[in-house]
Formats: sequence, structure tokens, C-alpha cells
Amino acid sequence: MGGGAGVAAATTVESKEWYLAAYAPQNIPTSEHIKLRTVNVSLEYDSIPDQHVLVQLLMITVDPYLRNVITGRDGDLYLPQILLNKVLTEFGIGRVVRSKNINFNEGDIVINPFSSIAEYSVVPSDFLRKIDPTANIALPNYINCLGLPGFTAWIGIDVIGNPAPGSNVFISAAAGGVGMFAGQFAKLKGCRVVGSTGSDEKVQILKDEFGYDQAFNYRKESDFNAALAKYFPNGIDLYLDNVGGKMLEAVLNHVNKGARIAITGMMSQYNTIPAEREGVNSLLNMVGKEVKMEGFLCGSYLNRFGEFETLMETYLKEEKIKSKHKIYQGIESFLESFASVFSSSNMGKVILQVAS
Amino acid sequence: MGGGAGVAAATTVESKEWYLAAYAPQNIPTSEHIKLRTVNVSLEYDSIPDQHVLVQLLMITVDPYLRNVITGRDGDLYLPQILLNKVLTEFGIGRVVRSKNINFNEGDIVINPFSSIAEYSVVPSDFLRKIDPTANIALPNYINCLGLPGFTAWIGIDVIGNPAPGSNVFISAAAGGVGMFAGQFAKLKGCRVVGSTGSDEKVQILKDEFGYDQAFNYRKESDFNAALAKYFPNGIDLYLDNVGGKMLEAVLNHVNKGARIAITGMMSQYNTIPAEREGVNSLLNMVGKEVKMEGFLCGSYLNRFGEFETLMETYLKEEKIKSKHKIYQGIESFLESFASVFSSSNMGKVILQVAS
Repeated sequence: MGGGAGVAAATTVESKEWYLAAYAPQNIPTSEHIKLRTVNVSLEYDSIPDQHVLVQLLMITVDPYLRNVITGRDGDLYLPQILLNKVLTEFGIGRVVRSKNINFNEGDIVINPFSSIAEYSVVPSDFLRKIDPTANIALPNYINCLGLPGFTAWIGIDVIGNPAPGSNVFISAAAGGVGMFAGQFAKLKGCRVVGSTGSDEKVQILKDEFGYDQAFNYRKESDFNAALAKYFPNGIDLYLDNVGGKMLEAVLNHVNKGARIAITGMMSQYNTIPAEREGVNSLLNMVGKEVKMEGFLCGSYLNRFGEFETLMETYLKEEKIKSKHKIYQGIESFLESFASVFSSSNMGKVILQVAS
Repeated sequence: MGGGAGVAAATTVESKEWYLAAYAPQNIPTSEHIKLRTVNVSLEYDSIPDQHVLVQLLMITVDPYLRNVITGRDGDLYLPQILLNKVLTEFGIGRVVRSKNINFNEGDIVINPFSSIAEYSVVPSDFLRKIDPTANIALPNYINCLGLPGFTAWIGIDVIGNPAPGSNVFISAAAGGVGMFAGQFAKLKGCRVVGSTGSDEKVQILKDEFGYDQAFNYRKESDFNAALAKYFPNGIDLYLDNVGGKMLEAVLNHVNKGARIAITGMMSQYNTIPAEREGVNSLLNMVGKEVKMEGFLCGSYLNRFGEFETLMETYLKEEKIKSKHKIYQGIESFLESFASVFSSSNMGKVILQVAS
């Protein structure tokens, strides 16, 4: 089975896959919770149901939201929890190896929002979208600027925030997958943009390469109220919140009249059980400053994905949007790549490349 | 000088007035902070500037927001702080005693949103509105259902919340000036309405007289998560927040997808310095449930006051809206009436009657 050279065509292939061995209610998940196993996947057509395809995984994004579906609690983000022993899924790209759908041929490259983190898997073809090989767009772009990170940033800034030119915009986790694009969208709208991030190196990159007017290292400038007073002498009009907790609390002490806060997630709180999450004690300021705060999930805006895609492709062609990612190599690296998302060690989107 | 009988017409009148003697950064303000003094007010026409009138105060509402302008901090609600030694102001009704504006005559009854809490005062006539004596509306209604309490409730429920029929609506401080009307507006929209309040007696009144489907005593059912689970088996679609703190935290654990939260104020936090305010640790739920939360001040909706007034007058005529108030008698009772706002001891709006 798989691996060794054979005279006859192989009928199965070995496939490594990451599955949930135990829920992780708090802290960064480890190999105690997420384990790698090897299974045999049949290559026989008869074993593939109609309207399904067998896909070889090429790459996935490694997203913080995944943290919320392996806590064993229903509450967090209200996404369904992954069942024990099931393979984890992520937004990814694969190559069709066998097809039982006439719209997909062997060799097609497809985007699958629900890719199993497995070298090979049989998937229903409903959610697959074929990539046009003539478009000349690098594969990582499809899951980065043209994928959920770019789409999330666009909803937060362009749809919910919709800042007027000259607005003062603050973005936390600014060097992360979402923040990186959010700052650029705000600059394209003529705003003054400041970001927070976890290292001096990333502060420099945000200013030098991503056009941020200012950025600061929240680990060094850990008095957030003082930092925001310094970087926002005229207050904050729009905050894209990726972290929650004490940073959100400080932002509410520096908001202008009618400020908006769009919340994509709260990374600083994901590894904590609900009862131990940081309280935000400055919400009264929402009244005096008439602040609008809104949480959102991309899934509710899918009807606008086409509009976003057209805009982003134009920006890419015109080189108005830049993109960075850190690639981890090999399916074995998934757990390491996932932990890195919570360590401030990466610039841009974290991607796991499984095959080329 | 006022008081004794005189042969000639008196040229001055004694006037008792409440002034700010010291800022009260926390706790319920006392006679250490707010003091009564007597001054002489001239009745001579020459002493009144043009476009001003001398008004005898008849009644004022006693509003929790006043707490925020005597803390000595600029931050809270961002309303300007009253200066030391200045007379406090409130929404009130007075009688014109002397007029230097041809549009006002002696004896006119006028609404003054910025009434000095003083028996007599000379005021600019810009903000005065004459009451039509033929309208046959009881005076307290002008500062209660037709005043800021009713207007605030209408903005929160009809303008910001705008719930669909059948929505599950929760109102805190439900027996207070704003809550009392908010629940009735939500019922008029066909919603299921539950309120929290501070005594069993008020629970009963909310259900029997104000049409609330359910109500609970938050002092007895002090596990707010358990209470909300019990009264909202189908979750909360709209929350009108008058109190903030732990009740808001619990609400966010029971919101439905796309819930709205309109914040009028946070009474439970007003007597606390900002650093000691209760943190809300459940804001992450705003993402998964895509909650919209918005603080507001009535002043930003004045362009809709006419629309509200017409609607409320219709409701009053059709007896669709009920109203309660607790009247404290005599200007000397102001401090007692103000403290009562924070003690859950009253049903409906607290009004101070100064003259009849």
C-alpha cells in the first residue's frame, strides 16, 4: 500500500491526517489534543460516492478561529464543535485526483473552504470552486488576500466601518492575516492608520511596507491607554478589533463621538475559559460617545464575496495591495504552525504547505 | 425682601437653590456635595436682560444622568461637568413671572430642558417651549412620557432596536422612568417583553399594569445567567440596557443571532470610579452571535422629537401608554429624591414638585 513502487497501479494511498484526540478547554492546544495518524485512502472509483471527488491537499491557511471549535464548549463563537476523533478542517486548496462529478477533472486545482487537514480526502463537490489556471495568480493569494483574511478585512473596514477620508483608524493584530489587509483598505480610503503588533520587526514592516502611518509593539508599550493617547492625539474613529480584552477596554477610553468598532474576533481571549476572560470596564463610554460596536462572521456576507473578489483582483493587478505569508512545510508541521498563530512570531498569514 | 407682608410691591424674592459644593467622584452624593442655599432674586424688569425671562420653577424630573456631571471627571458620558458653586440643572417646567421676550407673557407655563434647580431663576428664552393650556395634558406628562424618559425609550426601542413582532425583548431598570415606557413600546410592536427591577412589588406592577409578559426581582434572582435562562428559553433579540455591568455580561450569554443592544446608560456603574467599574467578560459572544451594540444620547435625535411627540400624544389619547411617577414635594426634598433614584425604591419617574 502506497509508498513503494509496484507493478500494478496502486489501489490505495497512505494519507496522514490531523484529528481531534481531546478537547482543549484552555491554553494553547498541544499534541495531547491534536494528533497525527496515517490512514489508507482508496483510489478506486467505486469507493467514491457520486458528486464527490478525491482531493490531494496542497495548502491550507492556519486560522485562529479554529481554536474555538476544539474547546468542547458550544458557546465560543457558536460554531459547531469538532467531534472527537474527527479530522480538523481549514480553508485550503487541493488537486483533484479522482472525480465523480463531470464538472471536475483530474488535475483541476480547487478551493475548498472545508478542507480536511489530511493529505488525501474524499469530499462532496458542492463547496469546491475551480481555480482558473490562466489567471496567473499565485496559489497562496487565493487563500490569503482573495480568501477569508482579505474578505474579513474588507467587511470590517469597507462594509461595517466605512470610514470617511481622514478618519483615525486603529487595527490590533495589525501584522496578522486580517490586520495586514485591513490597514491597507483603510489607507486606500484616505484614513490615518495605526496598528498594534507583537514585535519591533513587525512594527517596522507595517510602516515600511504596508503603509501604516504609525505602529507600536504592544508587548513593549503595555500601558495601552498611554500608547493610544500617544498615537491618537485626535482620538479613534474606527477600531478593527482582532484581540478583545484590555486593548478593547483602552480603545473605549479614546474613541471619538460616533466611533465604530468592528469585531472580527478576540484572539487574546481564545485560550481562556469564559469565566476567566478579561472584563472590559469602559463600556459606559459607549453612551457618552455614542459608539456602535458590532461583531461579525464572514459567513453572513457571502452574498458580497463576488464584489470583494472583483475589487481585490483589481487591487492586485494595480499592485495596490501587498500580502505576506509565512509558509510551514509538510503536513507534520501543522501543530507547530497553529501554536505560532498565538505567539506573535509570524508576519502575515500563516500557511501550511502540504504538497506542491 | 420676600417673606413678610409689605406695603410696597416686593422688589426681590427669596429663592432656595441647590448648588454643587464639592465633586463626588464615587458613591451616592450627599449633602457634603450638594447643598441648599437661599439667594435674593430681583423682580425688577431692569435687572432682566433682553430675551430672558424670570421663571418660577414648578417641577423637575430627577434623572440618573445628573450623577455623571458632578463627578469632577470629564470622561463619564462626556457631558460637561457642572462647575463648583453653580446651581444644578434638570429638565423641568416653570411659570413665567417676568418676561423680556415678546413671545412669552407672565403666567405662561414653559418647559425648560435646562431648568436651574432653584425656586426662581432668570433664564435665556431660547430653549423654552410654551405649553398649550388647552391641550388638557397633565403637567407631569410633559416631563415624563412626553419628555426625556419617553423620548429615550422610543429611540431605544423604535429607532435603534426596531424589533420584529414576536421578538424577545429584555429591559433592565424596567420600572424606572425609561424602562416603564420601553416595555410598553415593545409590546405595541408585538414583542414578548421581560423586565428586571428591584422589588417584588414593582415586578407585580410591571406585569399587572404595564403589560410585561414576565418580570423578575434582580435582588432576589441575583444569578443573572440563571434568571435569563429561565425567562428567555428562546434567547434575547433586543436588550435595552439601563444598568450595564454584570447584567449586560449575562445578557451577552443569552443573545440570539443578530441581537441588538441599545444602551441608554449604566446606572449600576454611575457611583463607581472608572477603574473600579465591573468588567464585562462575555463580549466575545458578540462575534459568534453577530451582535450590534450601540450607546446613544437623546440630544443626537432631537430632529425626531416632533415625530415622537405626535405618536406619544396619540398613544396618550388612545390610552395605549400608561405612566407612573413618584412625586417628592418641596425644593428641600431634592437631595433625598436624587438618592432614591439609585435605591430601587421608586416606581416610575421621580419628580420633584417645587410649586403648584
